[in-house]
Amino acid sequence: MTSPPGGAAERLERQFRFLTEIDRLKRIERQSILCDGSRRENSAEHSWHLAVAALCLAEHATAPSIDRFKVIKMLLLHDIVEIDAGDVFVHEPAELEAQARKEEVAAGRIFGLLPEDQRLEFLELWHEFEAGETDEAVLARALDRVQPAVLHDATDGIVWHRHGTTLDQIQKRMLPVRQASPTLWAKIQTVIRKARAAGHLR
Amino acid sequence: MTSPPGGAAERLERQFRFLTEIDRLKRIERQSILCDGSRRENSAEHSWHLAVAALCLAEHATAPSIDRFKVIKMLLLHDIVEIDAGDVFVHEPAELEAQARKEEVAAGRIFGLLPEDQRLEFLELWHEFEAGETDEAVLARALDRVQPAVLHDATDGIVWHRHGTTLDQIQKRMLPVRQASPTLWAKIQTVIRKARAAGHLR
Repeated sequence: MTSPPGGAAERLERQFRFLTEIDRLKRIERQSILCDGSRRENSAEHSWHLAVAALCLAEHATAPSIDRFKVIKMLLLHDIVEIDAGDVFVHEPAELEAQARKEEVAAGRIFGLLPEDQRLEFLELWHEFEAGETDEAVLARALDRVQPAVLHDATDGIVWHRHGTTLDQIQKRMLPVRQASPTLWAKIQTVIRKARAAGHLR
Repeated sequence: MTSPPGGAAERLERQFRFLTEIDRLKRIERQSILCDGSRRENSAEHSWHLAVAALCLAEHATAPSIDRFKVIKMLLLHDIVEIDAGDVFVHEPAELEAQARKEEVAAGRIFGLLPEDQRLEFLELWHEFEAGETDEAVLARALDRVQPAVLHDATDGIVWHRHGTTLDQIQKRMLPVRQASPTLWAKIQTVIRKARAAGHLR
């Protein structure tokens, strides 16, 4: 393939710096636990699981046609900002806003390690994901809720119990799924019912 | 999007079973250690890192045009067989053959959890990766060597020292990179020289 200007070796140095930096995503712990309950999930392995989920589940989208590659690119990149901004489990609007500002700064710093054309490409994908307006972003954001539901399903929602999460909070958090796919939404409701039956969700 | 026949809900049940099963890839430890040296890498987070590496580095491929999405699909799926077959660090041809047989059985079982059309799609991608003949598979296999080099670069190849790996073994293991990209090959040689200077590679 033909490299954009800048010199292949020099570009590769920047790309290696970026790839070294994002290795830190493997150290960011999420609230979710693995299906075997053994430990908390980290954001790097979550991103992989999500990308495979997109390959499997894109067919359930309400939108008539979906660029699956774009969905997967967004999902591979969407959590990288957590390296600086952390993974937070917030329900309050004020906290959400403060977090969004932190993530914007993080995106600037981390994607800024890349050659300029790639910085712009990745930043654009990240903004598209955050805005949640295109069909691809709607699906990607829904999948970001559905993947944890795979883990909740396997563990009867025990994490919800540990955090004292309420049914209202979960239903609100899962709303992006409703918009993206009735099939996925129905499945989420089953997972929620199962967690309630197990006494893990008030 | 329109679902292939089979009933969306029934397909989703199979897809959820598959996504639950592959969660186990997060528990498969590799020989590589993270850039901060804190612990061994697992195969799920390795797969994520690799997919992002493909997004960044595909431009360095020798091949005149590369289907990046196909490369990324192969990389997201290529290690799933390790759930049954383990991650082995082998240099002997006889061991490699035995491992290949185990992986074939694993691919049949795990991809077999999916709806038939997806089972075939994923199996075909995995076989294409394993065969290493198409431009996409050549690049994917090279990246599977380059991503660990990011970790070796950050840790001066200390893992090679711990395993008593020789320069010959590493050069042989890195050969797929030579075929796929002279730029990536030159970078690998720099990482190797650095590890030798640190006294970590005989």
